[in-house]
Amino acid sequence: MIYNEILTDIKPTSSQRDRIIKFSDNLMKIILDYANSLNLDVECKLVGSMAKKTSLKSKADIDIFMTFPLDYSEEKLKEYGLLLGEYCINEVGGKAEKRYASHPYMTGLIEEFEIDFVPCYRINDSSQLKSAVDRTILHTDYILSHMSDKQADEVLLLKKFMSSINTYGANYKVSGFSGYLCELLILEYDNFENTLKNASNWRIGQEIDLENYGTCKNFKDPLIAIDPTDKNRNVAAALTMQKFSEFIVASRNYLNNPSQDYFKDKLVKTTKEALMDEFKARNTTCFMLSFNVPPLPTDVIYPQVNKTTKSLEKISNSHNFNVLNKKYYITGDNRAHIILEYEISQLPNIKLHQGPLISDARNSENFMKKYPDCFVKDKKWAVLRKRPYTNAGKLIDDMLKKENMHMLKLGKNVKEELLKEYKLENIMDYLASVDEREYMEIYTFLHPNFLLNR
Amino acid sequence: MIYNEILTDIKPTSSQRDRIIKFSDNLMKIILDYANSLNLDVECKLVGSMAKKTSLKSKADIDIFMTFPLDYSEEKLKEYGLLLGEYCINEVGGKAEKRYASHPYMTGLIEEFEIDFVPCYRINDSSQLKSAVDRTILHTDYILSHMSDKQADEVLLLKKFMSSINTYGANYKVSGFSGYLCELLILEYDNFENTLKNASNWRIGQEIDLENYGTCKNFKDPLIAIDPTDKNRNVAAALTMQKFSEFIVASRNYLNNPSQDYFKDKLVKTTKEALMDEFKARNTTCFMLSFNVPPLPTDVIYPQVNKTTKSLEKISNSHNFNVLNKKYYITGDNRAHIILEYEISQLPNIKLHQGPLISDARNSENFMKKYPDCFVKDKKWAVLRKRPYTNAGKLIDDMLKKENMHMLKLGKNVKEELLKEYKLENIMDYLASVDEREYMEIYTFLHPNFLLNR
Repeated sequence: MIYNEILTDIKPTSSQRDRIIKFSDNLMKIILDYANSLNLDVECKLVGSMAKKTSLKSKADIDIFMTFPLDYSEEKLKEYGLLLGEYCINEVGGKAEKRYASHPYMTGLIEEFEIDFVPCYRINDSSQLKSAVDRTILHTDYILSHMSDKQADEVLLLKKFMSSINTYGANYKVSGFSGYLCELLILEYDNFENTLKNASNWRIGQEIDLENYGTCKNFKDPLIAIDPTDKNRNVAAALTMQKFSEFIVASRNYLNNPSQDYFKDKLVKTTKEALMDEFKARNTTCFMLSFNVPPLPTDVIYPQVNKTTKSLEKISNSHNFNVLNKKYYITGDNRAHIILEYEISQLPNIKLHQGPLISDARNSENFMKKYPDCFVKDKKWAVLRKRPYTNAGKLIDDMLKKENMHMLKLGKNVKEELLKEYKLENIMDYLASVDEREYMEIYTFLHPNFLLNR
Repeated sequence: MIYNEILTDIKPTSSQRDRIIKFSDNLMKIILDYANSLNLDVECKLVGSMAKKTSLKSKADIDIFMTFPLDYSEEKLKEYGLLLGEYCINEVGGKAEKRYASHPYMTGLIEEFEIDFVPCYRINDSSQLKSAVDRTILHTDYILSHMSDKQADEVLLLKKFMSSINTYGANYKVSGFSGYLCELLILEYDNFENTLKNASNWRIGQEIDLENYGTCKNFKDPLIAIDPTDKNRNVAAALTMQKFSEFIVASRNYLNNPSQDYFKDKLVKTTKEALMDEFKARNTTCFMLSFNVPPLPTDVIYPQVNKTTKSLEKISNSHNFNVLNKKYYITGDNRAHIILEYEISQLPNIKLHQGPLISDARNSENFMKKYPDCFVKDKKWAVLRKRPYTNAGKLIDDMLKKENMHMLKLGKNVKEELLKEYKLENIMDYLASVDEREYMEIYTFLHPNFLLNR
């Protein structure tokens, strides 16, 4: 594998990098000057992957953190942060937008760059943490002081690999490996290939403890990567078992048959008819539920749609409509899509309901009173009760009615949208008019391992 | 409850009884005379319920046991037993028939009586037992020496009650309470009503140990009734949990609302159309499998049909066709009937098949080789495999083919008959031409507790 070739594709050139550094130095100078004029104690710092030389060419996001002394109130911090950020963006003719993480910050679109101006406290170690973003400084400092430029390149390879197999990103949409976690993996295993070799043999509960804090045992996660800047934090806490497993499998696949294709997006080649034929061959009952979602951040909406999907699965199973497979995705037009594929979608009018032990005289009497048609089944009472639902589609449709919604766990925004409008269709009907851009999502529903090999 | 009235109906009159005693005394004299002429050391004994005064009027069976010294070989015992029995039957102009229990014996139809002539060893206690029938002598002696005439009447009430709720009989057809067990219950609880009062509060593992042997703990059965003549035997060993439970329930029902009807057979009033309507309302898929059985004793055929039923249920469930309810019965024309009612009788073409843990590298590789379409599902591999059967009826029909029968557990005679002929019909089709005499069996399939209350 000629990794240099790949790096050529994914690593910013030195002139690109110089330009960004110069560009952000200028922004920081503007902020500092303005802060001085206001008599504010502020320092500016380029942080994140750009500072650590681990940012991919395609994602040239710039993070400028404005650090305040610890004795500033949180109110002041927010106020000055927004003020300074907005001032700077306006000063260079950019477009300012207020965003929210653990507290509000300013994002500016300046030239082709997206720059986050984030206020935080000036801390030296994790014991001083006042807000989640404060860590970023510590992380940047740790990586800068521990990682060689060669290793930073290996991080780029790992990030690109992760990205193309869809395990990159700690956000709720992917629930995979964060950039910082990728960096720690390279610090642990030195290079890309060695990381994959080790990952191939990972077991559930794999421990990575660069500073030998010995705190891994406090965590119960698929992967435990102790934060070198905070011994009580697992950097991989957001990594799901699914993405942990997928990375292991893709690592093995890559090592068995290394290919540059693992550093490129894999595109699906299919047709509407081919997708329909696959569903037809399965002969399952498959529904597509779609509804609008408000244009809120990924980490607000995805958890709600995920919760909704799980809740629909749970209520289906509780009525004995076995869900064979499920998936959700949100399209660019802010529409959520939930696929529910049933092994069993039709049931008889009756179901067996177990009662108390025959030997339990008191409960037997109550059961007999409640169910005059009950009968002895071995050592227990039983009765054939009428099923509330004999059809899975009818169940879902009914549960989405206003008066039944309390039986589901939906999340505030999803609930509001479902009350306004939703569509519940058989997948065949949905596919008849599906947008081509959704082929990938539907294809990977049918072939979940599609991205894990090349 | 006027128990005397009931006894009038079910207890042989004293003249009936005198006649039977005289009749059997005469038979025994014939045997003894003939045995003397052959120089055989034989004694004769009237045993069983007739001897114990616990036989119901309707079932005037006579058991004459011919006891031989322990030094006679088993061969001799059988030979002389059959010889003496046959001689006696012929002598009084009856019709002799050879039958089999633990060893062969002679049954004679003489006048309106059915008399069993059974050879056995002359033993004093269970340590001398040579064959299962030898116990009968010990049981008869024990009851005769411990039970009052009043208690014998209570046994009659209990037997009749048991009979009309269908828990009487230790044979394989009922798997309920034997006559001897009924007698022990009366010895324990003194009378019919007190037996039911106690049974109402029985728990699983209920212990009855008249001779205080302290051996109950050696048994794991619903009811443990230690044989007073053998501390290592549970008289209730053949009692199923189902019949144990049914007796408890019927006891409670009776005590709540005592009625003479509990001592009469309960007849079902229904029509073909009503039965069909009930199945229609359930909306299940229900099959009737029927086939001939050879005219062999109940305890030979019933276990085989039971085994067949269970085997069909098991293979159905293993293919995810959930059996909701099942039943078998054998009609007077020697035809077995198995009803299988399915909650799920139709499934999609695919099923989820779980594989090894992702972290198990070696088995992962094998699984991927075997199932190229496999995918990651959380911490394990999974694959959607083609189902061998998507329809329950097709499965059963296929399993009954000669080449597949080895997958079922059928029993020798049932297997032979199924190879010759069987009918597998939807219950609706079966009901269209069902014999009226089967209404009861089908009605109690739909209403299993029918006989437990009046």
